[in-house]
Amino acid sequence: MSEKKFLTRSKVNIFGDEYTIKGEGSPEHITMLAEYVDKIMHQVGDRNPRLPRHIIAVLAALNIADEMSKMQKEYDALLSIIDNQKQVS
Amino acid sequence: MSEKKFLTRSKVNIFGDEYTIKGEGSPEHITMLAEYVDKIMHQVGDRNPRLPRHIIAVLAALNIADEMSKMQKEYDALLSIIDNQKQVS
Repeated sequence: MSEKKFLTRSKVNIFGDEYTIKGEGSPEHITMLAEYVDKIMHQVGDRNPRLPRHIIAVLAALNIADEMSKMQKEYDALLSIIDNQKQVS
Repeated sequence: MSEKKFLTRSKVNIFGDEYTIKGEGSPEHITMLAEYVDKIMHQVGDRNPRLPRHIIAVLAALNIADEMSKMQKEYDALLSIIDNQKQVS
């Protein structure tokens, strides 16, 4: 049985611009994501105040992708712990 | 003992712009991240060809943050599996 998916519309503010985000996530989830992206863009912008905003956004995306790749490594490490436990038991 | 960290400089191309990225990651890692961000930006741009590039970059960052939050959920689920196994054994 397929899960019913509801599209939501959420207004969020990221780095001074307002966006209406359509998606399957709850408005709370989308707001949380937007606040995270906004935070990272401000961190990048504070370190490099003269950068144009599209470069700040690209560098923020790179930072977030880097965080994701670190999490992927930790996830893979956890998976191998579970595999080892299975082999031992 | 603190781990020695080496800063690298990597030239990458993201959505038609060239960036010199300074960071602690290997050039291969930074290139991999850049290719991922470039791919997501092209996916967003293909769906919304008239958007300015800073909005494409912000939407790409939001997409990547969403992927990361999904991975966080799976990571937390794995952690609770390990905790349950510890309690059973």
